[in-house]
Amino acid sequence: MTDIATRVYNHTWKIDPIVRSVLDTDFYKLLMGQTIFNRHRTTRVTFGIHNRSTRIRLADIIDIGALREQLDHVRSLSLTRGESTWLRGNMFYGKRQMFSPDYIAWLEGFRFPAYHLEKWDGQYELSFEGPWVETTMWEIPALAIINELRSRAVLKDMGKFELQILYARAMARVWEKVEFLKTLAPVNIADFGTRRRHGFLWQDWCVQALIEGLGEGFLGTSNCLIAMRREVEATGTNAHELPMVYAALARNEQELRWAPYQVLADWQEDYDGNLRVILPDTYGTSGFLAHAPDWVAHWTGIRIDSKDPVEGGEEAIAWWRTRGQDPRDKLAIFSDALDADEVARIHHAFKGRIRLGFGWGTLLTNDFRGLAAHGALDPISIVCKVISANGRAAVKLSDNPTKAMGPAAEIERYKRVFEVGEQVARRAVV
Amino acid sequence: MTDIATRVYNHTWKIDPIVRSVLDTDFYKLLMGQTIFNRHRTTRVTFGIHNRSTRIRLADIIDIGALREQLDHVRSLSLTRGESTWLRGNMFYGKRQMFSPDYIAWLEGFRFPAYHLEKWDGQYELSFEGPWVETTMWEIPALAIINELRSRAVLKDMGKFELQILYARAMARVWEKVEFLKTLAPVNIADFGTRRRHGFLWQDWCVQALIEGLGEGFLGTSNCLIAMRREVEATGTNAHELPMVYAALARNEQELRWAPYQVLADWQEDYDGNLRVILPDTYGTSGFLAHAPDWVAHWTGIRIDSKDPVEGGEEAIAWWRTRGQDPRDKLAIFSDALDADEVARIHHAFKGRIRLGFGWGTLLTNDFRGLAAHGALDPISIVCKVISANGRAAVKLSDNPTKAMGPAAEIERYKRVFEVGEQVARRAVV
Repeated sequence: MTDIATRVYNHTWKIDPIVRSVLDTDFYKLLMGQTIFNRHRTTRVTFGIHNRSTRIRLADIIDIGALREQLDHVRSLSLTRGESTWLRGNMFYGKRQMFSPDYIAWLEGFRFPAYHLEKWDGQYELSFEGPWVETTMWEIPALAIINELRSRAVLKDMGKFELQILYARAMARVWEKVEFLKTLAPVNIADFGTRRRHGFLWQDWCVQALIEGLGEGFLGTSNCLIAMRREVEATGTNAHELPMVYAALARNEQELRWAPYQVLADWQEDYDGNLRVILPDTYGTSGFLAHAPDWVAHWTGIRIDSKDPVEGGEEAIAWWRTRGQDPRDKLAIFSDALDADEVARIHHAFKGRIRLGFGWGTLLTNDFRGLAAHGALDPISIVCKVISANGRAAVKLSDNPTKAMGPAAEIERYKRVFEVGEQVARRAVV
Repeated sequence: MTDIATRVYNHTWKIDPIVRSVLDTDFYKLLMGQTIFNRHRTTRVTFGIHNRSTRIRLADIIDIGALREQLDHVRSLSLTRGESTWLRGNMFYGKRQMFSPDYIAWLEGFRFPAYHLEKWDGQYELSFEGPWVETTMWEIPALAIINELRSRAVLKDMGKFELQILYARAMARVWEKVEFLKTLAPVNIADFGTRRRHGFLWQDWCVQALIEGLGEGFLGTSNCLIAMRREVEATGTNAHELPMVYAALARNEQELRWAPYQVLADWQEDYDGNLRVILPDTYGTSGFLAHAPDWVAHWTGIRIDSKDPVEGGEEAIAWWRTRGQDPRDKLAIFSDALDADEVARIHHAFKGRIRLGFGWGTLLTNDFRGLAAHGALDPISIVCKVISANGRAAVKLSDNPTKAMGPAAEIERYKRVFEVGEQVARRAVV
């Protein structure tokens, strides 16, 4: 058991880099990476950091030298032998390897590509340009570094005991949530909190707390390194970047409309019918479901990510019914700004009607709300998203207009093509 | 910084004895020990443990083998060279050594004497019979061992994270009290919590929290080992055992009445006018003050230990005034069952009227109230007191009849001799 307060107090960058392994990333980056490797090796994609919490002037808080040091450290990493062995050992139901020898060989040779960094109006402009299969790897480490450097900037001015009490309070808070979640048993919860975590050690602690506290109710963690070290399941499927790039590359409106389904068609081929969880909201859930070919309704589950979760779940149940499916065989995974009370609300709404899974993210691994003066450790809403593919602007709409991304004219075009009407705005907490 | 949860989880007796040094005791035991060494080397005194919290059946909770092991370990201890050096270096105002070369030489050769242990009605009967100068040394280690073995009996069934959360909650609680006490500044607080501490590591943590949290407001700790290691003041003066033994040895009622004052006469001679803090309540504060010779009023201060503290403070102020003393030059030390709110109440009652000091004990070093199921870690009211001196029963009355000790007939005789009337009972919390 690591004494986090001591480590934080003593940390020097040389012994405590923020990202310490190629595997300190979300599992779905590797799953998507393999599909990109198989099908889109020459596609070039630019990713960029976007801080939606504009009131937090990150460039005033985080030293640019420290940021470069951490990013450069990531560029020095390569997959270790043990990590490679662990990846090879990940199987679907003990039968089929998740990762092909080719992809693992590529990953062994992989080094993080160059980044572009400058300051603009109190924020960092941090972007990654290059082959998609490489730039995609930056999303999680870049976010984790910015989030942890922000924490460290606050922590460095705190005394030894202030730190110990800070972590004592944060631990007690996590544990109270875990004890509460236990009362919902059976409940299935996974850690999805890598990107906006308070820090690596803290995420590792949270995962261990879930292992001990939830027992059977703990599904695993999206973080590959922690999954490997703590010997739990690595969890994840796919994300918005696939439909966003497929859409950006569409040569006409027909291809654009089809892009989200083409992602699924490729995916089920690559994963041989495993990992079939739909992420339907990239260009509006309702339109996606209405126009989906019938084979999509045969997929195992759905991820509800930007709509009110109860509304989103009801919509999925109704849709499955119209397609002749029994919702009780289906899985709904909730992952948007979850906290314990929200898990309970969703759990009570759907228990017995559908299988449930919860991807608990930032409010698991970074709930320091109110624990530092002026909310200096409160989590922020920061993302790393596709900006363009082969020079063409990428667009995301989602079910929440405050999360829409892309040039205004393109957003309008996508809304028209995907027949997205009025959307209800929800505040993006994290 | 020690990660207490880990140490508690991993502890095995061999590497984690409860009492690890002759100096893991209260400073006043050595100050009193020196007076006993100088004046009463042949006096034989029996001490015995008494658990006033009879509902807690200690013999059912603590294994007798473990108790013997810990007590035997104490008997293997001797003063180390560094400890001896530290004792020699303790001076009054940098001028006069507190401990004589003779007494330190004796202490270097000292080994804890035999103990007598048996079970009776769910409790341990643990007593120490022999030369006073030796048996007096058992009080603090015996109590610390029983209290910590009780904690360990509860902790051993807890999981790794349960333990970490337990300490996280206890730490947050201590820190909240410290932050509250800081608002009273200037305030003078010392740790008096060795005997009924949750555990050694925990007391050590609490002292460090006071050092960082209170700054100038932290006076020091009564624990010699911690004072030495943390480089803070060792605090303490004298206790009830001196008047109790002097009284038990009195050959007639005149000597008995005089005994409490004889203690002070010897003390001021031995300590050359330093450490002049009266402990007036052994046989009732009011009678003690009324009959005190005038030189007692010239002493620096008073310790209020068993009366309602505000009442006791007012009584001392009034008494000093009748003796022509200015209370603002005087010091009142409060030490009975203090907690932060009680410190604040006393502080507000006397601030500006008298100098104040607070000896914060059990509710500093053992406030785990409500943190384990069924209050299994709530502190108990357990003491180690003089039972007899040279075969004659010892008696304590104090200002709180629930704390009276000794044979009933002797209690009545003492009440008559010391003219103690009706007393108000106060619940003994710790």
